[in-house]
Amino acid sequence: MELNKKAIISACLSVLLLGFVFSCKAQNETSSKNTQSSNSGGHPKLIITKAGVEKIRAELGNIPIFDATLKMAQEEVDAEIALGIDTPIPKDFSGGYTHVRHKRNFFMLEKAGLLYQILDDEKYAKYVKDMFFQYAAMYKDLPVHPQTRSYARGKLFWQCLNDSNWLVYASQGYDCIYEYLSPEERETLETDLFKPFADYISIENPQFYNRVHNHSTWGNAAVGMIALVMDDAELLHRALYGIENDGLDKNAKDNDGGFIKDPEGRAGFLANLEEPFSPDGYYTEGPYYQRYAMYPFLIFSEALNNVKPELKIFEHKDGVLLKAVDALLNLSDADGDFFPLNDGQKGMSYYSKELVTAVDIAYLHGGKNAGLLSIAEKQNRVLLDDSGLAIALGIKNGEAKPFEKKSVNLSDGPDGKQGGVAVLRNDDLEVVFKYAAQGLSHGHYDKLSFSMYENGQEVIQDYGLARFVNIEQKGGGNYLKENKTWAKQTIAHNTITQNGKSHFQGKYEIGSKHHSVLDFYDFSNDQIKVVSAHEANAYPGTILHRTMAVISDKDFEKPYVLDIMRVTSDKANQYDFPYYFLGQVMETNFKYQTPEVLKPLGAKHGYQHLFVEAQGQANQENVKLSWLNAGRFHTLTTVTDNQDEVFLTRIGAADPEFNLRKEPALMLRKSQTKDAVFASVIESHGSYSPVSENAVNSHSNITKIEVIHNDANYTAVSIMDLQGHSKVFIVSNKTASKEANHKLKIHDDTFQWTGSYYFK
Amino acid sequence: MELNKKAIISACLSVLLLGFVFSCKAQNETSSKNTQSSNSGGHPKLIITKAGVEKIRAELGNIPIFDATLKMAQEEVDAEIALGIDTPIPKDFSGGYTHVRHKRNFFMLEKAGLLYQILDDEKYAKYVKDMFFQYAAMYKDLPVHPQTRSYARGKLFWQCLNDSNWLVYASQGYDCIYEYLSPEERETLETDLFKPFADYISIENPQFYNRVHNHSTWGNAAVGMIALVMDDAELLHRALYGIENDGLDKNAKDNDGGFIKDPEGRAGFLANLEEPFSPDGYYTEGPYYQRYAMYPFLIFSEALNNVKPELKIFEHKDGVLLKAVDALLNLSDADGDFFPLNDGQKGMSYYSKELVTAVDIAYLHGGKNAGLLSIAEKQNRVLLDDSGLAIALGIKNGEAKPFEKKSVNLSDGPDGKQGGVAVLRNDDLEVVFKYAAQGLSHGHYDKLSFSMYENGQEVIQDYGLARFVNIEQKGGGNYLKENKTWAKQTIAHNTITQNGKSHFQGKYEIGSKHHSVLDFYDFSNDQIKVVSAHEANAYPGTILHRTMAVISDKDFEKPYVLDIMRVTSDKANQYDFPYYFLGQVMETNFKYQTPEVLKPLGAKHGYQHLFVEAQGQANQENVKLSWLNAGRFHTLTTVTDNQDEVFLTRIGAADPEFNLRKEPALMLRKSQTKDAVFASVIESHGSYSPVSENAVNSHSNITKIEVIHNDANYTAVSIMDLQGHSKVFIVSNKTASKEANHKLKIHDDTFQWTGSYYFK
Repeated sequence: MELNKKAIISACLSVLLLGFVFSCKAQNETSSKNTQSSNSGGHPKLIITKAGVEKIRAELGNIPIFDATLKMAQEEVDAEIALGIDTPIPKDFSGGYTHVRHKRNFFMLEKAGLLYQILDDEKYAKYVKDMFFQYAAMYKDLPVHPQTRSYARGKLFWQCLNDSNWLVYASQGYDCIYEYLSPEERETLETDLFKPFADYISIENPQFYNRVHNHSTWGNAAVGMIALVMDDAELLHRALYGIENDGLDKNAKDNDGGFIKDPEGRAGFLANLEEPFSPDGYYTEGPYYQRYAMYPFLIFSEALNNVKPELKIFEHKDGVLLKAVDALLNLSDADGDFFPLNDGQKGMSYYSKELVTAVDIAYLHGGKNAGLLSIAEKQNRVLLDDSGLAIALGIKNGEAKPFEKKSVNLSDGPDGKQGGVAVLRNDDLEVVFKYAAQGLSHGHYDKLSFSMYENGQEVIQDYGLARFVNIEQKGGGNYLKENKTWAKQTIAHNTITQNGKSHFQGKYEIGSKHHSVLDFYDFSNDQIKVVSAHEANAYPGTILHRTMAVISDKDFEKPYVLDIMRVTSDKANQYDFPYYFLGQVMETNFKYQTPEVLKPLGAKHGYQHLFVEAQGQANQENVKLSWLNAGRFHTLTTVTDNQDEVFLTRIGAADPEFNLRKEPALMLRKSQTKDAVFASVIESHGSYSPVSENAVNSHSNITKIEVIHNDANYTAVSIMDLQGHSKVFIVSNKTASKEANHKLKIHDDTFQWTGSYYFK
Repeated sequence: MELNKKAIISACLSVLLLGFVFSCKAQNETSSKNTQSSNSGGHPKLIITKAGVEKIRAELGNIPIFDATLKMAQEEVDAEIALGIDTPIPKDFSGGYTHVRHKRNFFMLEKAGLLYQILDDEKYAKYVKDMFFQYAAMYKDLPVHPQTRSYARGKLFWQCLNDSNWLVYASQGYDCIYEYLSPEERETLETDLFKPFADYISIENPQFYNRVHNHSTWGNAAVGMIALVMDDAELLHRALYGIENDGLDKNAKDNDGGFIKDPEGRAGFLANLEEPFSPDGYYTEGPYYQRYAMYPFLIFSEALNNVKPELKIFEHKDGVLLKAVDALLNLSDADGDFFPLNDGQKGMSYYSKELVTAVDIAYLHGGKNAGLLSIAEKQNRVLLDDSGLAIALGIKNGEAKPFEKKSVNLSDGPDGKQGGVAVLRNDDLEVVFKYAAQGLSHGHYDKLSFSMYENGQEVIQDYGLARFVNIEQKGGGNYLKENKTWAKQTIAHNTITQNGKSHFQGKYEIGSKHHSVLDFYDFSNDQIKVVSAHEANAYPGTILHRTMAVISDKDFEKPYVLDIMRVTSDKANQYDFPYYFLGQVMETNFKYQTPEVLKPLGAKHGYQHLFVEAQGQANQENVKLSWLNAGRFHTLTTVTDNQDEVFLTRIGAADPEFNLRKEPALMLRKSQTKDAVFASVIESHGSYSPVSENAVNSHSNITKIEVIHNDANYTAVSIMDLQGHSKVFIVSNKTASKEANHKLKIHDDTFQWTGSYYFK
């Protein structure tokens, strides 16, 4: 099976390669059906096209969102022109002056190029040309960047990744002023700057370039885009297929601890497109990096589509790039913030420039989905090119429709067989359930973890990363050591830690070999959205099986979350199970002691970062915790027995640099236990306004939840509300299919149903 | 002097009393010049008037903000009518069902009454009548409320305060349906409900009614408003002047620890109007309670103005009520949230219903200030009466102008001689400096404390109260014990604690006798806003003298705050000086140890609630701390020597019920020190966006600050920025007048100036 897959992929790549070589030779004879081809029409042709420029000029002043974006860009570039060009000798990390200046420069190269095309004002072309010549003069003799931290140091920046960013944008600027330059000028720039630049980030840094990784995607796109502008077939081939004999050590790792060499030796843009995206468009590193990677994927694909339409890049892998945009938008909360799965910085959202690119390009090349127009309206800016024009016209013509997010299940893995991520949605509630693969070097050890949102507010949080991206004083803006010692560890997540150790012992080599397995998901019923998956490798000998449901129940004010974590093991263990609630504790129903002195919960695997604020013995039936956050009440009710312990913890121990956020959790602990069921309900209820000072519905509506049955075949949980209404949820532990018939007697009641679960 | 004041006030009250008695007798003979008098015109006459009803009906459908408010009210009342009337037997604390239900009822009595008048639909009158009769039937035999916590238990509610709320609103409802009822029906309601109700909260509870306190203001207004509706001269007299022989013990205290008996024996509405408001309209308990008290003050005053215009209540004390509205609006941040001085719950704002009342009434009776219209626009609702109509018409006619908040100094005390509160404003920065009197029972022990805001975000916070108002599960929604053990204590504030003890030993009896003293304030210069005050009684033998300035300096991106706290004492002490910054630590420049185990900073006076997260020795020159909050960077730079200690603390120790917010502070400590100067600059600089991931100007612009001179006459501080520009600020410690001439030689420089301070 595994071998077959490899063979198929290799074959596909070969066919593509042949097709490409053929198309290169035959490009002038064959006529593309794609009318957007501008291959033979001179420059610009890459992103903005000659035909696009004409249309834009004709519509200017009559396309509000485009006009407004253009005005902003003009003001920005004019201010930079007034400031003068500076290309300082590289010296700093992210956040430092030389880094920030070169970063700003590449944005200017692109923007000024576009302004030249759209406004037909030579001052912009001259600015781009002058900056390029300044770079060319410097680049020839530029040594490797003095900061030595990266596994792949750049020249303008401390890592090749940022150099690649530069070239992706600079290529667009070059394309825009290509015809403004004389052949001699172009010759100088290409010889002194663009070709050596492309070579440096590729053949001189294969450990960066020849990987399946978001870094490499940037590298590939950079080389490919300058290749398309320069019409350099050899560079384009290198962009699409990588370097053939890279000489890389198969055990080498990057700064994040990720393997460098792809186990199957794949490299280049097409491999990068093949590998990290699942058929559903989920990117294995998670939405934060998917957002980052989308820019080179889409911008280079659009360039390929414009210059080499015969490659049909947007149809590749059944249209995976366009699906990826849709998947990414669905991986955002009600405010458009991406769920911070794996290494994700909170607050990154579909308002980012990468998503402006993604939405505009997906609109133009993905069948003009009117839902994307409403996202673009919120973004309130567009690309200053053909796709931005299309968006602006769509909005102007009143075609925008709401982008409706529904419950989605997104498979992980190149073939969609390596677990996945589900988002359950019901009214304002969103539950993000992660049963995915490791997520490459940016993955966290958090099998079957979840997070919960209400209307864009976190109720149960995923911590995200431990990093302040681009804030120089925080470790150069790079990953902090707490990212490894805390953020990646299992105890930092809302899932089970066994015997105080992270999943896979916190080892990337082991974690990378495994993924959780979907049992079923069912979004067909408006009242209840369910997903169920299990994990058998995080702790050998132990199986974790978690079922999560968001349930609309007329006896409750709002939908609630039902969470059933069933653990079976071949030996007795300690199970620690935290819920990282956000907000102020309102009420508890269990007895606890609060120590006068706060001590850490443990010594390693992230436990060293948690202070114990309270500790108590659980009740015989249920433990309850209510809290208030952002004007809403929430209550966790969980089945316990009086052998269980309950901890209230707070993040922030062993944090000498104050790199962590001091946020709370409730943690359940079962000790000396082989098999266990953690069954919980999380309610969101009522509201509080400090202006009206009204507390509405501030109490839980649940009298009791109970595990009424649990064996190898079935687990059943009953939920009783304050009015005495009782509901039963049963999940089949063996046969999850939709068609299976089930019959189960619990006490005096017989339950009979067809399908993956029972709820009534 | 003190005796003279008393005599004058007594005389004034007597004259008023005589005038009132005269006016009662003569009311039919004299014709008022105030055209709004509706005294002789039947009902309604209290808040909405017969003439007002006619005008409103004529404009309906044509006054958008009024129409929208009316529609909301109608939907709300219709829903309640559909639900049916419930007047449950009183049982619960705030937040419990019976409390919430009776509270909702009184709002309905008022709203339904107004709807009856405006819409001329009898169903609303019948609803009000039916509810009144239900209350009348119950009230006759109703015992005192079963909850025993209050010093003045109500009948419908656990405290007389809430019963008074009921009567203030119910009076308005009664006025609206007065003519709908038969004389017999009115007789029944007045005999069984309104009169005994008014007697219960007044003569049966003098300890509640006969005070100078916001509670009593509600009581007085309640009795007065029902008196005006019933035309009951005796009750009205009791409302205006209190109960004559109340038999109260002069040492008795209320639940908050405040004295009950006014030392000068004053009581009644006019005394309440006289005493807590300063001539500038500052209310001594602080803006949170001012907001609460404004409703009865203004609504009863409007009623008096309508029914007894000859009292000229709005001209009382030089128009203090209207000044109070202006003062209160100026005590809010850029978002309209009130500064949480003393016991203030954060988030309370000018969007509250009390401020809708205040703004509408102040507009109608205060010369139609167009700035108030812009606040009303933000509030987006109006009173459904004559004043609301005036606002709605003003907005409709496009007369709204921005309400411009400027730097203000508001004196405290009935005569404006008991210190005060200053708000320094410059661009987006606001500094709130408190040098006021104790603030009655809601006061905190925080002489010369301050808080700092940027564009509505707290930079250096005032903790506010320790209470979750109306959230039942948090101590019945009442004050928590941490309010006394933490929130009121000096160490909870951004000022000096000497030898680990709160100001005035944390004793109300002592604190109430004193106030800080203003040295000067100067807002005349656009570049620099300054205030300076001293406190000589918080610690006998020690003088605290604090000067705060907000300075616009072209060499800095934004204005910064200069803070000079000069301490002189007759003996060596320990001075602890915290800054409660909000946000994530970015950078420090001093060495510290972070303990593995967190211990409390001390055992009492609030110290028991602080954990020590880090401790270190200060640098010889300056200690710096930078933090990030809500996308902005801030840096505190403070002059230190290497004998000083620096602590990073976190609130939350000894907090078994999780009643406190776990927020940080930097605390400076000087030990064994007699005289000291704490000189600091707080910068707000740059920005960070998690969407663009750009960190702009993330570093402090200050190289060094230094105390270059300090003696009995002058304190001088120099501030040097990164570019080497140096500024000097000098404050005269003896002669603060604007006219004084000064000359001071420091090292080789001679400084010469006229006025309270020098800055260049």
